[in-house]
Amino acid sequence: MTDFPITARNRVMRYPTRGAYDRDTVHRILDEGLVCHVSFAIDGQPFLIPTIHARMGDRVLLHGLKGGRLLKHIEAGNPIAIAVTLLDGLVLARTVFNHSMNYRSVVLYGTGRAIEEPAAKLAALECLTEHVCPGRWADARPPNDKELMATTIVAVDIEEAAAKIRQGPPGDDGEDLDYPVWAGVLPLPVVPQPASTDPKQTAGYPVPDYVRDYQRARFSVF
Amino acid sequence: MTDFPITARNRVMRYPTRGAYDRDTVHRILDEGLVCHVSFAIDGQPFLIPTIHARMGDRVLLHGLKGGRLLKHIEAGNPIAIAVTLLDGLVLARTVFNHSMNYRSVVLYGTGRAIEEPAAKLAALECLTEHVCPGRWADARPPNDKELMATTIVAVDIEEAAAKIRQGPPGDDGEDLDYPVWAGVLPLPVVPQPASTDPKQTAGYPVPDYVRDYQRARFSVF
Repeated sequence: MTDFPITARNRVMRYPTRGAYDRDTVHRILDEGLVCHVSFAIDGQPFLIPTIHARMGDRVLLHGLKGGRLLKHIEAGNPIAIAVTLLDGLVLARTVFNHSMNYRSVVLYGTGRAIEEPAAKLAALECLTEHVCPGRWADARPPNDKELMATTIVAVDIEEAAAKIRQGPPGDDGEDLDYPVWAGVLPLPVVPQPASTDPKQTAGYPVPDYVRDYQRARFSVF
Repeated sequence: MTDFPITARNRVMRYPTRGAYDRDTVHRILDEGLVCHVSFAIDGQPFLIPTIHARMGDRVLLHGLKGGRLLKHIEAGNPIAIAVTLLDGLVLARTVFNHSMNYRSVVLYGTGRAIEEPAAKLAALECLTEHVCPGRWADARPPNDKELMATTIVAVDIEEAAAKIRQGPPGDDGEDLDYPVWAGVLPLPVVPQPASTDPKQTAGYPVPDYVRDYQRARFSVF
């Protein structure tokens, strides 16, 4: 796949060798992440909201209750930035200076517009639901007209994006390698635990396989 | 502890009952999180950078290599927003509409300034190191003068902050409770795995206890 354009906005400045601009890398990080952060500015004041996203091609879908500040701002065509960050572990170097984290992140820039047409809204909600929990859309009660009306969905076209990735052992070198301390990496993955059934459940439905065996499709960079 | 002021900037608008403004809740979420996202705006263009933070009283410390765009922007006294989001699990409701996530998040607003004095820089780096990995500061090689010179540290005074918390089972009600599908919560904690030793290690130092037994101090809201 082709690369996203590299501009003054998305060029990775710190540790540029950690940067990647190809669609495949950007897409896979967006697809693995469950939470994104959306940055927007009103009269020079920056705001920041964590929310759920899903990717549909080169677009990112966001949703929320009608009338929210963020979604109204996006619907009005204002620029936003979105970040998805996957923390993989702590890099415990011999030197304080070389301490770091292993991570995979994406920051993207774009503008959005509301999705208004009911069938397109349903398709977007399916994409969001299946992004978070593949298999759930077929089981859950679909949105009714009232719920669909109460939901705003926006699609943000990715104009520019950059991934940034650090993996591997600490970067100590030279005489620091002999400094008398253990050094290495502490992996910090998200590990799904057994599901807890809603106490309000009125019949003994079993935990679905897609919940019991839930795993994010982890994207390995090596 | 006292609450942060509630203004048009930090008031929780969506699901206001999930909002909390007390220092204790805000501090504990900031202290548990390993990654924050920093939002800033230049000429109306929003930017967003994931980075490491640490809290020192009502200040948030950020650091990076000298000359970075974000830190220069903060040093110049511009407003920023910082978010820390802890994802706890998926809320799998009977209805698509009631699907959600359990989370604990903080968004804070403030302005910062550089910490220049070498002893204060060292104290800030100790705070950052101990935030990420308590016990590490005493073991690792301290920063030397050159490394300290190459590092910029800023302290951001928290002017306003809001926590937002959702925990517990799905919010379905009424006749939806009889919809024939399993509903519940899938916990998604970060679970530390056995550390991997740096292959460049030149002697057989054991994995320190604070790495082997690493746990974030999890803040329970119930």
